Amino acid sequence: MKDFDVISTRAPRIDTPDKATGKAVFVDDIQKKGMLFGALLQSPHAHANILSIDTSKAEALPGVKAVITSKEAGTIKYGVSPARYDEMVFAVDRVRYVGDEIAAVAATSLEIALIAVELIEVKYEVLPAVFTLEEALKEGAPQIHEDFPGNLCAEVHQEFGDAEKVLAQCDIVKTSTVKNKRQDGACIEMQGCIAEFDNRDTLTLITSTQVPHYVQRTVAMVLGLDVGKVRVKKPYLGAGFGIKASANPMELACCILARETRKPVKMNYTREQVFMLARARHQFTHTITTGAKKDGTLVALKHECWLDGGAYSSFGIATVYYSGSLLGGPYKLANMKYDGYRVYNNKPACGAQRGHGAVIARACFEQQLDMIAEEIGMDPMELRIKNMMETGDTTCNDLNMSSFGMSECIEAVRSGSNWDKKKGNMPESKGIGMACGFFVSGAGYPIYRSDTFHGTVIVKLTEDGGTALVYTASAEIGQGSDTAFAMIAAEALGIPLDNIRLASGDTDMGVDLGAYSSRQTLMTGHATKEAAEHARAQVLEVLSEQLDVPVQDMNIRNGFIEFKANSPDFSELRTRYIKEHRGWTDNPDSEKLTFKEASRIAFLERGSIVGTGKYKPHNLGGKFKGAAVGTSPAYGCSAQVAEVTVDEGTGMVTIDKITDAHDCGRAINMTSVEGQMEGSVSMGIGEAMHEEVIFDAKGHVLNSDLAEYKIVTAMDMPQVNAVVVESNEPNGPFGAKEVGEGAIMPTIPAILNAVYDAIGVRIYELPLTPERVYFAIQEYKEKTGAA
Amino acid sequence: MKDFDVISTRAPRIDTPDKATGKAVFVDDIQKKGMLFGALLQSPHAHANILSIDTSKAEALPGVKAVITSKEAGTIKYGVSPARYDEMVFAVDRVRYVGDEIAAVAATSLEIALIAVELIEVKYEVLPAVFTLEEALKEGAPQIHEDFPGNLCAEVHQEFGDAEKVLAQCDIVKTSTVKNKRQDGACIEMQGCIAEFDNRDTLTLITSTQVPHYVQRTVAMVLGLDVGKVRVKKPYLGAGFGIKASANPMELACCILARETRKPVKMNYTREQVFMLARARHQFTHTITTGAKKDGTLVALKHECWLDGGAYSSFGIATVYYSGSLLGGPYKLANMKYDGYRVYNNKPACGAQRGHGAVIARACFEQQLDMIAEEIGMDPMELRIKNMMETGDTTCNDLNMSSFGMSECIEAVRSGSNWDKKKGNMPESKGIGMACGFFVSGAGYPIYRSDTFHGTVIVKLTEDGGTALVYTASAEIGQGSDTAFAMIAAEALGIPLDNIRLASGDTDMGVDLGAYSSRQTLMTGHATKEAAEHARAQVLEVLSEQLDVPVQDMNIRNGFIEFKANSPDFSELRTRYIKEHRGWTDNPDSEKLTFKEASRIAFLERGSIVGTGKYKPHNLGGKFKGAAVGTSPAYGCSAQVAEVTVDEGTGMVTIDKITDAHDCGRAINMTSVEGQMEGSVSMGIGEAMHEEVIFDAKGHVLNSDLAEYKIVTAMDMPQVNAVVVESNEPNGPFGAKEVGEGAIMPTIPAILNAVYDAIGVRIYELPLTPERVYFAIQEYKEKTGAA
Repeated sequence: MKDFDVISTRAPRIDTPDKATGKAVFVDDIQKKGMLFGALLQSPHAHANILSIDTSKAEALPGVKAVITSKEAGTIKYGVSPARYDEMVFAVDRVRYVGDEIAAVAATSLEIALIAVELIEVKYEVLPAVFTLEEALKEGAPQIHEDFPGNLCAEVHQEFGDAEKVLAQCDIVKTSTVKNKRQDGACIEMQGCIAEFDNRDTLTLITSTQVPHYVQRTVAMVLGLDVGKVRVKKPYLGAGFGIKASANPMELACCILARETRKPVKMNYTREQVFMLARARHQFTHTITTGAKKDGTLVALKHECWLDGGAYSSFGIATVYYSGSLLGGPYKLANMKYDGYRVYNNKPACGAQRGHGAVIARACFEQQLDMIAEEIGMDPMELRIKNMMETGDTTCNDLNMSSFGMSECIEAVRSGSNWDKKKGNMPESKGIGMACGFFVSGAGYPIYRSDTFHGTVIVKLTEDGGTALVYTASAEIGQGSDTAFAMIAAEALGIPLDNIRLASGDTDMGVDLGAYSSRQTLMTGHATKEAAEHARAQVLEVLSEQLDVPVQDMNIRNGFIEFKANSPDFSELRTRYIKEHRGWTDNPDSEKLTFKEASRIAFLERGSIVGTGKYKPHNLGGKFKGAAVGTSPAYGCSAQVAEVTVDEGTGMVTIDKITDAHDCGRAINMTSVEGQMEGSVSMGIGEAMHEEVIFDAKGHVLNSDLAEYKIVTAMDMPQVNAVVVESNEPNGPFGAKEVGEGAIMPTIPAILNAVYDAIGVRIYELPLTPERVYFAIQEYKEKTGAA
Repeated sequence: MKDFDVISTRAPRIDTPDKATGKAVFVDDIQKKGMLFGALLQSPHAHANILSIDTSKAEALPGVKAVITSKEAGTIKYGVSPARYDEMVFAVDRVRYVGDEIAAVAATSLEIALIAVELIEVKYEVLPAVFTLEEALKEGAPQIHEDFPGNLCAEVHQEFGDAEKVLAQCDIVKTSTVKNKRQDGACIEMQGCIAEFDNRDTLTLITSTQVPHYVQRTVAMVLGLDVGKVRVKKPYLGAGFGIKASANPMELACCILARETRKPVKMNYTREQVFMLARARHQFTHTITTGAKKDGTLVALKHECWLDGGAYSSFGIATVYYSGSLLGGPYKLANMKYDGYRVYNNKPACGAQRGHGAVIARACFEQQLDMIAEEIGMDPMELRIKNMMETGDTTCNDLNMSSFGMSECIEAVRSGSNWDKKKGNMPESKGIGMACGFFVSGAGYPIYRSDTFHGTVIVKLTEDGGTALVYTASAEIGQGSDTAFAMIAAEALGIPLDNIRLASGDTDMGVDLGAYSSRQTLMTGHATKEAAEHARAQVLEVLSEQLDVPVQDMNIRNGFIEFKANSPDFSELRTRYIKEHRGWTDNPDSEKLTFKEASRIAFLERGSIVGTGKYKPHNLGGKFKGAAVGTSPAYGCSAQVAEVTVDEGTGMVTIDKITDAHDCGRAINMTSVEGQMEGSVSMGIGEAMHEEVIFDAKGHVLNSDLAEYKIVTAMDMPQVNAVVVESNEPNGPFGAKEVGEGAIMPTIPAILNAVYDAIGVRIYELPLTPERVYFAIQEYKEKTGAA
């Protein structure tokens, strides 16, 4: 007998047929009666004082219904960063990047709105601007925000043990610096939204967001409304990846335009505007020093990180924290020192993207592990196994690996890739490399230091007893959360998945912090399970009363009531209900009592059966300052092996194969887990190989379209062998934990290590464009005098 | 101190701003991605055998996605009448009226669908048809349904006491026959619907219905789906009046087209098709004999009624029951005999319309009361007062007047109209007349003899504590039910109406039998009150735990927590919550604890606070056969005085003034009650004065538009003086009961009695067109030899 009937299977996702057939409704598919169209005026200058704004010509244009600036929008700072609120809806007296929002227009057509935007006259005094970390940090550099001298947005300093002292005594010490490039989230769907006030002053915002809850709170704060008077709904999303994980200025402008016009207003970002909004992966410069003993035991890590933040904070401080704290594992390491800095400049703000803050740190660190292994002549996989944490271990910075299938992951990629045979025996110009990684399953505390539950769910049974309706405010953004929750509800109720209907992404349905930090399955999954169990308990209570059988002697499974002892005689009950209650049963002669029958009895006796569930993590606080931010109820972990071919003549790197294993705790839906693993690998390859947002000398994005900014397509994908490793996470619902972000961690270092294996040259800067690889080889050859 | 804070006031309706500003979304405003358009093929013959149907040409037309006939639709009988199911989606081998549905088409545009309908080739064998009661009952008449010989659709026979015997001994016996004309519901919005299957086989039907619940059940039955796999949603409605109180063939065809095409399909009736669907007020022929004592005491009533039913049952048998049973009151009457018959013919089926079945019976009976009063020289008002039932009385057919403000109603119209001065003293050609009436507040049993709750409601508090969301499947059809339930929820929770948001008309939200038989306020109102009280109790429970104050020592009123004894010291609680829970309170220095604060505490301690409520009437069963159908938990009652001017030269009757009083129990919203009273009067005037659906000799409607079929407009409305009489109905929520239909009861007889008062001629046939009145006067003059 299987432990589970619904979860741990390969259920067809409940959202994909809609998407495959074109039925799925995205924000821009939605039309409202009398809808207006909004457009933004954004700064053409990277840094300038606003001397005056004249909206009179725009207002006079026929069809224009409202023109708003900071006068209407106010000057409330709404930024998402826990420590730094510097973002306002519109610039007040200064613009800080090309794209900084200044004004917005609502008109009867998008064309009119766009013309009106052009008619707004802004007088600027252009200021000197800085675009790089180095320029921004220079003495006398232009200051982006008066209250942050030296352009230092945020800094984090952590020390566990005594890294400096221990490093001084190490047998082996390796130091290197790795630098990536600013990325764009490159969601296929550009952000869009529709805001509308009803006639009783409730604002509904339909928006392509990962976090309806936070958008609800931000909108309420900025517009001065009660949270209960703001409803945020999320239709289908064309991805998020972190970029849609906070309210954006367009959403807020849209709500203000709706308030001013009392009409529904729709706004959309163009692809160019998406690049201007940015809020995606930072450019990181990590300098890491790792110390080890001769036998390969890791003993200390010293780590300095500089983030090229852009003009505003966005997730700034959280990103800095994650960049440091997620090197605390998955290896035993007693001494760790971290100094992280986020620096302002006059480019669009960077924010969170899949694997928030931790991806490049991991790339740098895992490269060093290979260097150490090489130096002591140890197989890099053996080095990692030797230092690996065990289930129940806690990192020096208080991350508890309450479940930890890392050894199984390594074994899976070792055998899956045929590592033992291949490593050291790769043909000319081919290489093999590996890396590990781990990631949080949700953050211990909400962004905004809110005190709310992280998720609440309602399960309501239909009156016919046959269907359970699951209501959650969670955010299906393409990751498969709707299907996961439907499966969890089905499993917890003991009924088939087909009998679940689910509605999500609506703040009216409850609280849910949304889709970020890989939190949905564990956190909302918990709330879903509790709500389903609550509904189930009520059905069994009523049945217990009717049959005089204790609740604990009954079970529900596969849609049938099971009795632990001998089945009671329910013929009297059946006869009575058939007689008194028309249509009570579909199978009057069945020998088994169905859930549908029992649930219908519960309805007839008590009315609507409604179960509620909630989730808040247990106390995770560590003893170290700032530890809390990085901590999570659980951590997913993974190992990957990359195989590459490098053409030394051109510098072209081809990824031949990725073997990927991930411990996701209990896999709710095997197919979705694999999908997340493959998606993570694809994003990691994009970041490793070719993604880079390029600016001109005045701060304009040069490649703000998906023709010039290249993401990985199906054509670029290597063979991926994804192996799901299941563990039983004690803090997860049915033992489940994350997969959506952790799976990206090993991809870049595994590729970097494989490239080194192929060409013997270490590359410390991303992406691995042919040009960069070619010149690295040339430089190496020159240095070493190789032919 | 007032008893109530929210109810019994004049709250602005929550739906009217949307309607007044054009924001309201009706079915036809809704567009779906990839939506197809449906059209119906309807019979051009009143009676014919279908020899063959050839859909091949229609199917071959480009753009046509499906053509369906009874082959696809099946032959399940779905009729709404409790005793007679004779309606199928499509005619199988015989059509029975002009408009009988034969086939439907879904195509990429309405134009293509309409062309395709024309391309369906049907071979008919035309049969002899019958169009009147008399023709249908003739020996040897064509038989409409084989299983109903003699074209008798339904009959009801009731006897209470011994009417025949008592009549034989009466001092005064009056017999008369009154006949009305077939009406159209004439809703401003014609029926429309959109059906769509999602990719998990759940069918959503958005439709302009009064009864989402029954439509859900009918659709599930006809399509063979689980009820839980069918969701019916009702957007704003442009009225219903009973005509939209059951599933119609278009809704079912639309669902089948959606199943066949796997696309959303929209269908709308044209105005002509609305007249063809009919299902509105029957033509009744009532013959009533009333017996009284010399002193005016009523003693017996003998009543025969014939209904011209049309080709199918619709609400047939329920209509026949109501026609008889609602004469059991409001007067004391020990002996009543009723024989009612509904007869088939080859016209569209009649059904339910405001005041279901009872309006013309009341018109006939209240006219006779005036005849009796005249004969014994008694003021007609005095005669009614003399015979009036009292609170708590039960009629001979078991209707219990658990609240009964009839005396107050009569006094109100007496003084309001200045009756005592005017009656007997009206100027030449002017007349005054009065009548009384009563009606059910919901039917004791659901249509379909379902065993379900009549209403379930869910109340969910938002996490910020400030707003209560009320979810009900009830049907706001223009009568104001959404506002009534929002007010009831606010009153029960103890918070202002502004803090309620309400969603209704969606079967996913619960069970609600819908808007018919004036059931919403009493029945759904009960469920709403219970759900709100359940949510309130949970808030107080948590507060009780936190403050150590017993629940019963606390109250919630106007958004504040009230303490019965001395207010406890909640400063510690406040300090703790302010410290631990960011944003817990808006008013940290207030001396009072608000509901918002308490409700937020409840959320933070327990998660989502969800209250559930339900309603099912107590056992109402009477001892007489069929009594149950007519019984209700409560009865609204009313009195009206009409003042008219009759132009004897032209026969033109002008209604000068209506004085109307109605006992609605506790008025939830005074303004809405008055609106229902005025609306009822307007419909009564239309029926009395000019509404009549006219057919040609072959069964085609001749006046199937609102230019030729005249309903009352603002221009036709007399001054209406509406007086709300409040009683405290023990079976109603906060004492409320019906007003929507009972208020029409006295209108027609009051007008008839006023016309008699003006011209001395009794008219027994409606409507009172100038022609009919003129000839009645001429005939009277000829008969009596008057000048």
